[in-house]
Parts: sequence; C-alpha cells; structure tokens
Amino acid sequence: MSRDELTKIILPEDKMPKFWYNVQADMPTPLAPGLHPGTKKPLIPADLQAIFADGLIAQEVSTERFIEIPKEIREEYKKWRPSPLFRAHSLEKALDTPCRIYYKYEGFSPVGSHKLNSAIPQVFFNKMQGIKRITTETGAGQWGTALSLACKRYDIEAMVYMVRVSYNQKPYRRIFMEMYGATCVSSPSTLTESGRKALAETPDTPGTLGLAISEAVEDAVGREDTKYSLGSVLNHVCLHQSIIGQEVKLQMEMVDDYPDIVIGCCGGGSNFAGIAFPFIPDKLKGKKVRLLGVEPAACPSMTKGVFAYDLGDVAGFTPLLKMYTLGHNFVPSGIHAGGLRYHGESPLVSQLYHDGLIEATAVMQNDCFSAAQLFAQTEGIIPAPESSHAIRAAINEALKGKEEGKAKSIVFNLSGHGHLDLAAYDNYLSGKTEDVEFPEEALRESLKTLPQV
Amino acid sequence: MSRDELTKIILPEDKMPKFWYNVQADMPTPLAPGLHPGTKKPLIPADLQAIFADGLIAQEVSTERFIEIPKEIREEYKKWRPSPLFRAHSLEKALDTPCRIYYKYEGFSPVGSHKLNSAIPQVFFNKMQGIKRITTETGAGQWGTALSLACKRYDIEAMVYMVRVSYNQKPYRRIFMEMYGATCVSSPSTLTESGRKALAETPDTPGTLGLAISEAVEDAVGREDTKYSLGSVLNHVCLHQSIIGQEVKLQMEMVDDYPDIVIGCCGGGSNFAGIAFPFIPDKLKGKKVRLLGVEPAACPSMTKGVFAYDLGDVAGFTPLLKMYTLGHNFVPSGIHAGGLRYHGESPLVSQLYHDGLIEATAVMQNDCFSAAQLFAQTEGIIPAPESSHAIRAAINEALKGKEEGKAKSIVFNLSGHGHLDLAAYDNYLSGKTEDVEFPEEALRESLKTLPQV
Repeated sequence: MSRDELTKIILPEDKMPKFWYNVQADMPTPLAPGLHPGTKKPLIPADLQAIFADGLIAQEVSTERFIEIPKEIREEYKKWRPSPLFRAHSLEKALDTPCRIYYKYEGFSPVGSHKLNSAIPQVFFNKMQGIKRITTETGAGQWGTALSLACKRYDIEAMVYMVRVSYNQKPYRRIFMEMYGATCVSSPSTLTESGRKALAETPDTPGTLGLAISEAVEDAVGREDTKYSLGSVLNHVCLHQSIIGQEVKLQMEMVDDYPDIVIGCCGGGSNFAGIAFPFIPDKLKGKKVRLLGVEPAACPSMTKGVFAYDLGDVAGFTPLLKMYTLGHNFVPSGIHAGGLRYHGESPLVSQLYHDGLIEATAVMQNDCFSAAQLFAQTEGIIPAPESSHAIRAAINEALKGKEEGKAKSIVFNLSGHGHLDLAAYDNYLSGKTEDVEFPEEALRESLKTLPQV
Repeated sequence: MSRDELTKIILPEDKMPKFWYNVQADMPTPLAPGLHPGTKKPLIPADLQAIFADGLIAQEVSTERFIEIPKEIREEYKKWRPSPLFRAHSLEKALDTPCRIYYKYEGFSPVGSHKLNSAIPQVFFNKMQGIKRITTETGAGQWGTALSLACKRYDIEAMVYMVRVSYNQKPYRRIFMEMYGATCVSSPSTLTESGRKALAETPDTPGTLGLAISEAVEDAVGREDTKYSLGSVLNHVCLHQSIIGQEVKLQMEMVDDYPDIVIGCCGGGSNFAGIAFPFIPDKLKGKKVRLLGVEPAACPSMTKGVFAYDLGDVAGFTPLLKMYTLGHNFVPSGIHAGGLRYHGESPLVSQLYHDGLIEATAVMQNDCFSAAQLFAQTEGIIPAPESSHAIRAAINEALKGKEEGKAKSIVFNLSGHGHLDLAAYDNYLSGKTEDVEFPEEALRESLKTLPQV
C-alpha cells in the first residue's frame, strides 16, 4: 500500500530492534564528564555505585554505538512494541496542509507512555544485582507508574516520591501505582531530611522534580538493599528510549518516506532523545533532517537557561552535570505538564543543542491545550499535556508548510495519553488555565546559586 | 513464528474485514418480533423511524448474512483496527496453567473501548440522513464517550444522559466527552418529563440505564433534527461489533489455533455478541466451541431473569423486545461496572442462550476486581470493571483446565481499559467494595410489572 493509504504503519514483532542506539558514539563534541558534588573531580564508576546498578553504570559511560537489548527485555517490550506510527490524515485535513504528519504513539504501553521503555531495563539490571527495593521521583506520574509496573514484574519493592502539585492534580496516578503494588507519597514528604527541610522552609511549595530526586536518592543511599532510579536526563535513559526513533526510521522506510523534521517535547530530555537521536548519524552524513525539542515556556532550560555544570537535584546529592539549566533552585509555575517541570536538560541533548545539531523552541501552556483539543477532535486520542507540546510544534510546522507551499514530512513523538490528566483539560475547557509571565527575576536569582567548578 | 513465541497477533490493515456478520441469518429460531409499546402489535420499520436513522433500521431487520461496511467507516476503523489479539504469557505463568489464554484488546480505540465500533456507523448513517443532533444514554461512560467522538467526526451535536451513580463515580468521563464537544448530564435530569418524574418519586435514586434511555428517547422524539442512539442490546449494534470476533478468527488462524471457549462480559450484550457471534456458524457446523457470556451477580438477566417481552426503558417509550430480563423496574445495586447495570439482555443473545447455543454465568464484583488486579500485575493493562468480568471467567476456566490437565485454548474480549475507573480500584484496594446479597424480593416485585402481551 502507498503511504497515503495507510493510517497505521505497523512494524512486525520480529523486526523490533535488537540493539539500543548510543549517540555517545557519534557526538562531535564528547560529553563533559560528570563531577563529584563534593570533590568536584570527574566521576568514576564507583561514585555511582551507591545509587545505580552496575549494568546501568556501564551503559551510562559506554561509547559503543549499539548495545544489545537482552532477550528478556525484548520479550517484555513485545507487550506493547513495536509501537505504531500513525499518519494523521484527519489532522492534516483540518489544517488543510500539504504536509504529511506522522505520530509515533507510545500511549499503547500498559502504563500509557514511553516511560516503560526505560523502566523495564532499569529494573531488570537491578534485579540481576539482587536489589530488593527501588526508589524514584515522578512528576506527572508517568515515570512512577512505569517503574511500579516494572518492579512488580521483577518482584522488587517500589517507592515513588511524586511532586506535590502533580500528586494533587492527578490523584488517579497514585491509584495506578498502587494497583501494581507500589507505594507513592507526595513530595516534599516527612520521610526524608530533604523533604522535612523543604517543608520547614516553604510549607506551601508545589514541589519540584529536583526536590523529589533528593528525597528518592536520600532514601536509597540509606539502605543496603535499595537503589535509586531516574526516569530521564541520564545517558542510559536516553539509550533505552532510542528504540522509539529506530522503529520510526524502519516504519518511515516501509512507506518510502523520510522526515524533514522530527519533534519531541523536552523535560529531562529522554522523550525527545528517544525519537531524535537515531537520526543523528544520518544528519552527520549530510541528510537534511531537523530535530526539534519543545519546552514549556514556564520551564525553558535550553531557550532561557545557561550551559553550565549544575546539580541534578535540590539537596546536592547528585553529581554535577554539564547541561542547559535554569539552576537547581528554580521553581517553575505549577503547569499541568508536570513531566516537563525540570530545571535541567539531559547532558546529551544539551551538548548536541550546543553544537547546533538540534533545535529548541518554547511554547505556552494554553497553546498546547488548544493543540491537544484539536488533535483529540480529529485523531481521537486525548494526549498527555507533555506530549501536547510536540503536537503544538508539529501543527505550527504544518501551518508554516502550508504558508510556504511546501509538502514537508513531519514526525512527532506522541509519548503518552492524557486519560489521567482530564482534570487539567477540565480546567482548560472552563477557561481556568492561565499562562503566567516567566519569572525572569527568579531565574536570575536561581542562576546565582550554580555551583562553582 | 509459532504461536508460543508471539505476544501480539497483528492482523494487517488490509486484512480487516470488509463486511459485518449478521447472526440473524443463522439463527435456528428466528427472533420474535419487537412489539409496539402501545398497540402491542409487531413493529414495522416506520415505528422505528421516529427515533432511528433508516440505514440502521434496515440493518436491524436484515437477515442477510454479510452486510458491507461502507468504505468511509472502514477508513475510520483503521485509526484503531484491526485491534491486537494478545497472548497472555505472563498471566498463564502466574496461574501455572497448561491453557493458552488470548485476549482481544479493544482498549486501543481512542475512547478506550469497543464502543466506537458501533458509534462510528451509527453516526455515519444518521449523517447520511441529514440529522443534526443525537441523544443517547451511557452507563459507565464508555458508550457516551464513543458517541461523542463519532459525533465530532461527523459534525453532529451530541447529548448524553449518564446514569447518576456512574456520573458521580467517574467524573473524568464527563470531561472526556466535553473534550469532543459533547454535552453530558447526570440522569435522572430535570431536562425531561421522565427524569423529573423519577426525581420526584425517588430523589436519591442511583439511576439506571433503563431510565437514562427514557430520557434520551424523550429528548429525541421531541425534536425534528434529532435522533436517538443506543450503545448495545439492538441487532444493529451486535452487527457492528461482529468485526471483533471476525478479526479474532483470522488472528487465531495466523497462529494455527482455534478457541475451545470464547468469553465476553454481558450487559446489554453487544460486547459478548461482538466476539462470540462469528463463531456461531462454526458451532452449527459441529465445531466444538463454547461461547460464554459473563454477567454481574448484581444484575444477572440471563441467569436469574425470565425470557419474556419487556420494555427496554423505564418510562415505556421503547418497543417491547423478547429477551431475558429482570424487569424494566429492577434497580441493580451501584456496582462499579456501570456498563453492565442493564435489566435486559440483547434479544439475539437471549434467543441463542434460550436455544442452548451459548452459556451464561454470573460473577461477584470483588472476584472481578481481584482478577483485574492479577491481570494488571501480570499483563500490565488495567482493565475496565466491565471487562474484568470476562477476565474472572477466563481465569476460572484456565484453573479448571489446570485441575483437569487439559491445555484448552481460551479467548476473551478485553473490551476496554480502566483508566477512567481508578476510583473504583481505589475503593477495592482499600477494602471498601462490598458484595451485597442479591435482592430476590425486589426481583419478584419487578417481574410482576412485566407488560402483558
């Protein structure tokens, strides 16, 4: 069938990639090393062993281009992978655009998002090492849900610190995690020093991902049987998500097409990295493909931040990473896309952005909600507020293509559905979501607290 | 690949059935005619024209074995069809059963259930006739959501009367419908005579599907531009859902298997009919395949009701249909599987049950929730409370197979996900869902009010 007849492009199960793609093999500028938060000396693997499993540390520092996906993990992936690539016929028609819009839909994973792509391998490698308990943070709850299911799969206890504003906005998320047997608490909590300190200083804080990370790391380092797990930012997470973009390439080949532009939303960066990184080798070989990361205007680490060493969390338990950052003390407004409320950006995405291989743009919350509504009313799927950032950018590009009379091929990562975010849409539909002005002064203050290296 | 290697059995888009299967062509006992509620004479198509579009009435009375699916509808179906047939490897392992368990997953439709299979054609045939507005009832909200999306697709106004107990239990459902531009009100409402009457008589009623149907029909007959739409029970709805079972047959062929037993939950009956009816011709030809409908013990029309003419609604606006019924005045307890709280059973399912071609069983709410939890923790997907009835029965059959040392092939319809039902699971997890004793006395009273024909 021709590309214009198909609605879904389905990769057969036996064509699912057997390797993850590691962009570290192809970086024009190698990654700056992570630094120990105390000594500020380059990290050695041993520094990471207190919090991460050995298999994941090996992936974190590897520069091998392809890393095999263990067979056990591939069997788990098959419950929802390969994921479909949809052609957005109805959306194209509504926009009256000559462009071809495709979306890679990760919402068919049992937890409703791409996060399970990394949760399964992270828990798997912890299991290999005999770990009994894993702690983590979660923003909107997508990562926490994924980790909870993966832990149940491998019979490991899961402890999730969920950013307070999201915990209150999305009550169904806690239940989702509990269905998998996990424990989920609101962060800041009274269970950790970092949490108690934050509650004492700012009792009404909405919480941040950086703070929830501090709590989860503090909890993990205190117990022999426990490790910590992170849902984005790090190299090994971007590595696991590379299966998305690799599948997209095979699926585009199936319909004899190639993207002019690849789009993903950017919080910690793994969502965007997952769909975009596998196109980097083509780009380095001269292929004309734009890779566009989309940030929320309320938390724009690449478009308003600085490229500098910063902490990954508030309390200072994590290594210093060189990344685009708003400063680890920056508290973004309580937008509904809780998964994008992170002060920093993945070091890999940051370096590639710095080197001009990828682009970034920032979009306003209400513009994303209106894009989400149009998408729901044409393609049917209610998207996660995070994913709606990619939809907004894709629509903008399709409208630009229409203006310019160019039939571009646009692909974006629809990283998850919004069934657990309907309260956010209720707010939007009743005109209650306001776009607040960006707090420039708070950013300046936050940047003053960047660690000196 | 062999059947034991595959996790998902995917039918290619171009193999999607082009015809609906009409079981009326193969009924050993033809359907008893519907009767006019006033004259009690057999219905003629004209009687139905006040509420239904002509294209649907033609399907309702047809005895053609195969009815072509219009190309426009097939294009819409392709947004989520063919739906995958999953092999439940992890569940089988947890049960330590020699049986092969498959589930047909309809939850990948944009609205999260099989209901869109009928909503799209129903709205399409109304659109052909120039209808501008459609009213309907909804229990748990799955049908209302599907109709809302279909109406948006064809630019028709949607008005949904949602049974009060579900409206309160599942607040996200209203927002889901509103995202598609529909209006959703709690039933009984003050917008109709039937609603006002019910509110006056029993102000604290949880509502019933029968009452919501009365409101929606009353609303529709009062307006020239408006028709009514029903999400289950009727022949044309079962017809549309036949695409499910037809796909299952093709998918089972792909892995060289054939079911010993096919299972679906039963409310109005279209869910079960959809997966089971396409196996009727095989069964009539002597194939050994059991077809099992699963009812909630709180609303067991087949296992505790009578086979008699009854009204489809409370107020008496609908035709009299010969079906298994608990009486149209029966008010089931407020179980979370709101989609199964209907007093009657599809006349087609009823007649086939009466003729011994299908079997029925009733299960308790808490047994369904525990089955749902085991399913979520093994296969990952959180099922709709309705679908959990089918899971319970499938697990029971798999355990029986283990006991008997028989490696049966079991297929069930996982008709939808439970992302909008997490409050119900929260109740279950905190031990708050009680199985109430069946109200035998209320049933006897209700059966006394069956219409005399």
